[in-house]
Amino acid sequence: MDSATTAAIALDQGFDVHALSFRYGQRHATELEAAGRVARALRVRQHVVLDIDLRAFGGSALTEDLPVPKDTPLERIGERIPSTYVPARNTIFLAFAMGWAEVLEASDIFIGANALDYSGYPDCRPEFMRAFEQMAQLATRAGVEEKRKLNIHTPLIHLSKREIIQRGLVLGVDYSLTLTCYDPDSEGRACGHCEACLLRLKGFREAGREDPGEYQPGQREHGETGKTKRRREQAT
Amino acid sequence: MDSATTAAIALDQGFDVHALSFRYGQRHATELEAAGRVARALRVRQHVVLDIDLRAFGGSALTEDLPVPKDTPLERIGERIPSTYVPARNTIFLAFAMGWAEVLEASDIFIGANALDYSGYPDCRPEFMRAFEQMAQLATRAGVEEKRKLNIHTPLIHLSKREIIQRGLVLGVDYSLTLTCYDPDSEGRACGHCEACLLRLKGFREAGREDPGEYQPGQREHGETGKTKRRREQAT
Repeated sequence: MDSATTAAIALDQGFDVHALSFRYGQRHATELEAAGRVARALRVRQHVVLDIDLRAFGGSALTEDLPVPKDTPLERIGERIPSTYVPARNTIFLAFAMGWAEVLEASDIFIGANALDYSGYPDCRPEFMRAFEQMAQLATRAGVEEKRKLNIHTPLIHLSKREIIQRGLVLGVDYSLTLTCYDPDSEGRACGHCEACLLRLKGFREAGREDPGEYQPGQREHGETGKTKRRREQAT
Repeated sequence: MDSATTAAIALDQGFDVHALSFRYGQRHATELEAAGRVARALRVRQHVVLDIDLRAFGGSALTEDLPVPKDTPLERIGERIPSTYVPARNTIFLAFAMGWAEVLEASDIFIGANALDYSGYPDCRPEFMRAFEQMAQLATRAGVEEKRKLNIHTPLIHLSKREIIQRGLVLGVDYSLTLTCYDPDSEGRACGHCEACLLRLKGFREAGREDPGEYQPGQREHGETGKTKRRREQAT
């Protein structure tokens, strides 16, 4: 949801978008299928999926066989850095994006980090992004030889999930193509209980819209809406 | 040569060394065999090789089918950033090391970057390393929740190749195990002509020592010394 909205914002601002996804050993590789669907729907210039193996280090519920936290009370999300935190993930993602930007002679990177309705990840905060920009200036040939500044754009960083959804809907983002869940089933249907699902559902609720995403059956109270709900209604 | 010396320095300073190498699509994967030999000889705690695909972006003679510069006059090495520069390489390497350090609860990263007798890479300079440290402080759970500082150690950064070799020999580094060349043959023998070979050979010459590395036959004037030379002498 965040990446799709971010890409739509970059396109709306007139940028030529080259999309980058990572297969980083996440349990939910269906996320990458969703990324491909979104990239095609938005007609970005290209979409590259990079293989990196964050599993080699362990340390996260997203890459290891640890339980993903479920049904965290909304007011407690973000209190502590949760087990779904992947060490250095955004630093690694941005480092690769920086390398690709240099090859493409691009000077703008967009990332859908969000520091408001977020899960307490340190590398989603504005101060991290500014420190990365400063480091990038010293790290690259473009920065050193041409004094070209790399801009890290974080258009969602201060938005609530409600505001992200409202912004995306104005720009025509089809959220039925997106996947936000940390623990989807093999068909890519969201669990409705992890922190990512809870925040997404809260966002749609506050925006007064039905979440068009697909949820696993029987999760009505949490997230069964949209297509799944309609499908069950048709079946009965 | 630089990594081996750096690891020996870290061990000498009493650190428990976990070694990290990258298979990043470099043309010279024999470099990784050398890294494994060095890691075993130094008896580091563990040696992990991570697969990352920097070829997906292109842009470097080290990962693409571009010619590696040969026989650059020594006084011109470092004047410009050469085609062997891999965009964002050290940023990516350090980002992974930072993630692993967090999982290991380590707060010290050693990297064999060298800014003196170097090839003009922006991400080998002290100012880049300091900017990375500042970014790391804001990027990790350890930095944010425990205020644990990540220290990037660059013990070689101000040393000449001669000084690196002298330091390593004092610490017992076996340089016959190391590979420095950007363009070795399939048997892992150095070319003797690329900038990495030229700087290494100059270092051994200035240290008054014979380079024990293996060079391709017929490169006597540049680098044929040590084992290759002895082997030919035995053969004739």
